[in-house]
Amino acid sequence: MAGTDKTRNQVLGPAPVTVLVNPQLGENIGTAARAMANFGLHSLRLVDPRDGWPNEKALTASSGANWIIEAATVHPDLPSALADMNYVYATTARPRGMIKEVITPEEAGHDMRRRIARGEKVAVLFGRERWGLSNDEVSLADVIVTAPVNPAFASINIAQAVLLVGYEWYKEQAETLGQQTPELPALEGPGLQTPDTRPATKEEFYGFLDHLERELDSAGFFKTGDKKPGMLRNIRNLFARAELTEQEVRSLRGIVASLTRAHERRREPKE
Amino acid sequence: MAGTDKTRNQVLGPAPVTVLVNPQLGENIGTAARAMANFGLHSLRLVDPRDGWPNEKALTASSGANWIIEAATVHPDLPSALADMNYVYATTARPRGMIKEVITPEEAGHDMRRRIARGEKVAVLFGRERWGLSNDEVSLADVIVTAPVNPAFASINIAQAVLLVGYEWYKEQAETLGQQTPELPALEGPGLQTPDTRPATKEEFYGFLDHLERELDSAGFFKTGDKKPGMLRNIRNLFARAELTEQEVRSLRGIVASLTRAHERRREPKE
Repeated sequence: MAGTDKTRNQVLGPAPVTVLVNPQLGENIGTAARAMANFGLHSLRLVDPRDGWPNEKALTASSGANWIIEAATVHPDLPSALADMNYVYATTARPRGMIKEVITPEEAGHDMRRRIARGEKVAVLFGRERWGLSNDEVSLADVIVTAPVNPAFASINIAQAVLLVGYEWYKEQAETLGQQTPELPALEGPGLQTPDTRPATKEEFYGFLDHLERELDSAGFFKTGDKKPGMLRNIRNLFARAELTEQEVRSLRGIVASLTRAHERRREPKE
Repeated sequence: MAGTDKTRNQVLGPAPVTVLVNPQLGENIGTAARAMANFGLHSLRLVDPRDGWPNEKALTASSGANWIIEAATVHPDLPSALADMNYVYATTARPRGMIKEVITPEEAGHDMRRRIARGEKVAVLFGRERWGLSNDEVSLADVIVTAPVNPAFASINIAQAVLLVGYEWYKEQAETLGQQTPELPALEGPGLQTPDTRPATKEEFYGFLDHLERELDSAGFFKTGDKKPGMLRNIRNLFARAELTEQEVRSLRGIVASLTRAHERRREPKE
């Protein structure tokens, strides 16, 4: 399927951010960038790439998608890569035993289109070559995306996973543009009616989770240290599903602060 | 997206035949075979492969899809490769100025499914790496398949073109199977993965909300009485959106109890 028309401009409108977590081979970063370019994606974030950055092999393997490689940003950890995002999709091949919604790439394409049309920033996470995303990384996302794949041969490389998600994103966009309705009026629901507020950024959301964790730590909530990671994951998943607004994150922080002060206040007269 | 389940059998039902016309690199034949395996395609035909056949590089690049490489057949020209087919799809990236219907991979997925269900044999043609299919080759097909791709960066390699067509074929099949065979676990979702628990009853959910309200009341959270109803409504809405499980409701009650006891505990030594 060759046939690039060099006379056309790149499509650089608002699009999902592609996040590669701990990628190992520069070649895979390059082929992922090429797949992004095929479907109008342009923003690439790398979390702790194994072989450092910049990486000459990534540039070569991108087959000309240089502008994506050159504009890629590097982040020390996943929370910092997602700080300004409103909604995050985690791609996985296998069930995770987590209480988190699982959607198809096609559903993700619809959902990304709807969210971006109303001004949200969204990111899609792709795991490392050997074993994908950790459960902790998945729990930082809002929803899981799993492609229907032959269960007897489910291994897909990073570039191909990026290709499928990019394809569904672009397909949806191409259909919408084809209908010539760039205004996209009725894209509100399902989703939040958020009068006078906006979806929380991940930085705000993670800030609340950190606050809650600190208070639960000092309250002795995590009785045994070995259960704490799993308990924290469950708490993250639970609140992630609520798709909190910025206002709600502040309310929840107010609730936590209020509850931890409660008994303090009651006792004050005694002291 | 790693996660192959080696215990499952290969899906070897009737499926479209993949035809690579004059492929140049063994690696590309191998990665195309891998993409076929991902989506339950198993029949590969090679028309005049440049470097001969068998090709060790093809086997290596197939990442374990050996059964496809080993069963591949070689044909001197395209008509002989298509002799027993009923309907043929030609993939191209650019318009050909031919009076031939052009459909999307998604439409091709539907169409292939429909034809195979009624016993037809269908094939999909993929061109050589450098310049795709000749007009003569395209004219041997019944319909053209072109994926919606960023026109400024339309170059897709063979394996990725196979991946997109295979994905649309399998997606369609998975949806049909999903209606009849609930035992296919890889086709789960959309929806929640709820291991070892169940959605909370409203009684359990309201019990948590009452508990939270009591503690917030005694903490002085609702500063002015007239704002309390609205604030409670917001809190209810926020937690309702999470569609909590019974286990999560208990966790949240544990969190509230723990937080309200926090400062009590810290003070105990002083008393």
